[in-house]
Amino acid sequence: MAERMGERAREAVADAAVREAIASLSSHFGERLSIGRALREQHANTITWLDNEAPDAVVFAESVEDVQFVVRTCARHGVPVIAFGTGSSLEGQINAPDGGISLDMSRMNRVLSVHPEDLDCVVEPGVTRKQLNEHLRDAGLFFPIDPGADASLGGMASTRASGTNAVRYGTMKDNVVALTAVLANGEVITTARRAKKSAAGYDLTRLFVGAEGTLGIITSLTLKLSGIPEAISAGVCAFPTIRAACDAVILTIQSGLPVARIELLDEVQVRACNAYSKLDLAEKPTLFVEFHGTQASVHEQAERFGEIATDFGGGPFIWETRPEDRTKLWQARHDAYWACLPLKPGAKALATDVCVPLSRLADCVDETKRDIEEMGMIAPIVGHVGDGNFHTVTLVDMDDPHDVAKAKDFISRMVKRSLAMGGTATGEHGVGQGKRKYMEAEHGAATLDAMRAIKAALDPLNIMNPGKILP
Amino acid sequence: MAERMGERAREAVADAAVREAIASLSSHFGERLSIGRALREQHANTITWLDNEAPDAVVFAESVEDVQFVVRTCARHGVPVIAFGTGSSLEGQINAPDGGISLDMSRMNRVLSVHPEDLDCVVEPGVTRKQLNEHLRDAGLFFPIDPGADASLGGMASTRASGTNAVRYGTMKDNVVALTAVLANGEVITTARRAKKSAAGYDLTRLFVGAEGTLGIITSLTLKLSGIPEAISAGVCAFPTIRAACDAVILTIQSGLPVARIELLDEVQVRACNAYSKLDLAEKPTLFVEFHGTQASVHEQAERFGEIATDFGGGPFIWETRPEDRTKLWQARHDAYWACLPLKPGAKALATDVCVPLSRLADCVDETKRDIEEMGMIAPIVGHVGDGNFHTVTLVDMDDPHDVAKAKDFISRMVKRSLAMGGTATGEHGVGQGKRKYMEAEHGAATLDAMRAIKAALDPLNIMNPGKILP
Repeated sequence: MAERMGERAREAVADAAVREAIASLSSHFGERLSIGRALREQHANTITWLDNEAPDAVVFAESVEDVQFVVRTCARHGVPVIAFGTGSSLEGQINAPDGGISLDMSRMNRVLSVHPEDLDCVVEPGVTRKQLNEHLRDAGLFFPIDPGADASLGGMASTRASGTNAVRYGTMKDNVVALTAVLANGEVITTARRAKKSAAGYDLTRLFVGAEGTLGIITSLTLKLSGIPEAISAGVCAFPTIRAACDAVILTIQSGLPVARIELLDEVQVRACNAYSKLDLAEKPTLFVEFHGTQASVHEQAERFGEIATDFGGGPFIWETRPEDRTKLWQARHDAYWACLPLKPGAKALATDVCVPLSRLADCVDETKRDIEEMGMIAPIVGHVGDGNFHTVTLVDMDDPHDVAKAKDFISRMVKRSLAMGGTATGEHGVGQGKRKYMEAEHGAATLDAMRAIKAALDPLNIMNPGKILP
Repeated sequence: MAERMGERAREAVADAAVREAIASLSSHFGERLSIGRALREQHANTITWLDNEAPDAVVFAESVEDVQFVVRTCARHGVPVIAFGTGSSLEGQINAPDGGISLDMSRMNRVLSVHPEDLDCVVEPGVTRKQLNEHLRDAGLFFPIDPGADASLGGMASTRASGTNAVRYGTMKDNVVALTAVLANGEVITTARRAKKSAAGYDLTRLFVGAEGTLGIITSLTLKLSGIPEAISAGVCAFPTIRAACDAVILTIQSGLPVARIELLDEVQVRACNAYSKLDLAEKPTLFVEFHGTQASVHEQAERFGEIATDFGGGPFIWETRPEDRTKLWQARHDAYWACLPLKPGAKALATDVCVPLSRLADCVDETKRDIEEMGMIAPIVGHVGDGNFHTVTLVDMDDPHDVAKAKDFISRMVKRSLAMGGTATGEHGVGQGKRKYMEAEHGAATLDAMRAIKAALDPLNIMNPGKILP
């Protein structure tokens, strides 16, 4: 029927449906539902150049039953429902291109249980990673995934987040043991038990990790924890070229050195960090490196890494085990984004990421840098290079259409370069709206059809965060 | 229509369909298709107490196109297709309860590429793990997953295999980077790129790992490799009780000691191994332990483990770094299954596994041992205890219905005990036919419905290994 309607008529029907859904939800949730414009806009994309596409209403969930009520109401009226954590996603994952209800999960922020003997915990999805790590500190445990932002764990699971520690501790796919989720039919599923491994049926845990809320709404997570290391050593090491730094990374990984973090900053980023964080690093391609272990082993690892660095013309590798020195270093790394802004006053800093096989990392970074230079852009490079993953932080004057077009073109070429090298369109930021257009080139038509079949099987009405991931 | 037919009429239709499918396949594959009874029976379950349910024919695939041809032919006639690797699965995964075509993948056994810099390789599914490790040795690399049998890597992926090294290196879910598979519609999908991580869409890799061929036929695998460790230390340590051994395991894991293997043998199993492998171990609950790393770190790790063992009344921990000593030890561990057989001459040894949160491991093993004693059975226990995973090897006189019934009852209670402790029905053997009946208790109805929806979406005709996993 809908196919035969004109665009206007369809919109009118959708408007009526959303009004009815909001009326139902409003009478149930009272003040926990809001249609205020400012709040709605805060619940859509605000970070990148993607338009802010606000939902029609925001509901603050406080329980699984709340989530079920919202989903069932939205299903009845055919209205989209978009889960919201902290809003730190980078590819428009929280936008509402077809309107609908933003389901704010931030009040579902209880740590439900911690099992130190099992190295796991169960949390609600609105718990943020910093909140969890505060909670765990006294138990000598931590949750290692660190995407930079203090994101919610539900959001981190949904975008398959990773970050600086992933080279040692894996990504969200490796650290979510199990989850519960409300499906489009309103039913709650539990994807796995708390056992460390299982061979009992389809791996729904990993299917929901990275699904960006398009298959269901995560309502709890069982997370793998790690012991806070007894000792940590960390340091910086400058290299003559990007390639030398990348070659040192490859040999470090190949040698089985269990490096906890190994981050590349190109000379542009180092210069920015020196200015912003008052450092006096040599303005060359530089690795920030960290090792976790016993006192003896972090000493041994740092020494070995120093030898590898020297082999590739890098160094000296200056490393420290004092917490205050390490903190200064990693604060500077985490502030890299902010450090970029003064490089082009008034510009917006647009972070994008790709990930290639490690053997192609130097090629990919080199070619990307050449592109930046040839285009006359400012776009420092930072990377979780132990995984072959790197970011450009492109500085764009959003009021200059030419500058915007140039940056879009640059990012598109960067993604295509990654795909041509056997890499992916995104190592950790996810697809959202921004990278949907690359999905066919990355996966091929048959694979996308399989993804669409799964989506349709679990969400036949297409109400769960529509317009994301699948083109 | 089929619903209104009687059982006989349905069978006649199915018989006709399978005859037509075999005729089509036979004219295409010639001698690579066989309907010989002995060969067909070898391609069904031969290991456990599940009946041997032979397929109607066996086809030896040599290419992706062969697999596509078989699947498309089977789809056209509505005939089941069951992938076969080496036949070492333990829960009837390769049985053909509804007849159909066994698709033998053993000739697709080429290592397609090895990328030492990326620590990965691409293989066809018929490559076995020992074959791969032979191939890799000169490059200083190895594939760590070791389920005991020299299984095919396609089969290991399909059952989500793990084994002794999983505590350090993970299971197949952690070591398959990407795969290609032929879907029920005959299309080939590629689940991921060779990049170490990606956030680009649904994780079809992990969906196919553990799906036991019910969603498609794996035609190649990109596998993560590890460097052969510079040094290895290994040893044995006896404990006064199972609980003391388990407590030592918990503290070892909690301390972040990166143990590569930590295997529990109960005193019954130790006695059997002493006799079979000519060892003189104390006949007590015993841990076999191995550490991988640098010379200094494996020394340090072994020393630390020795201290932990002493804290729980275990020890002395006698460890070695000489390969010949380690080989003898692990050969004995791998021969544990054979060592059990003389304990009850003429009996069949039925291996089953469960996996519980580590904190419940001692409870679960203790209660299981009590059950064994009270039932007057012989069932040694061995376990990959760093993961909370353990096996019983139940010795059963298959000619004695009472003995068989008792053993079935015992295994059923063991699974229910695991589930009641937050564990799973199977940590690594998979579901197949044998554990389907526990899936509802493990997952709940809503989760099973979601799995069924995914199965129906990708295999609407239910031709891919029907009668497995889902009850």
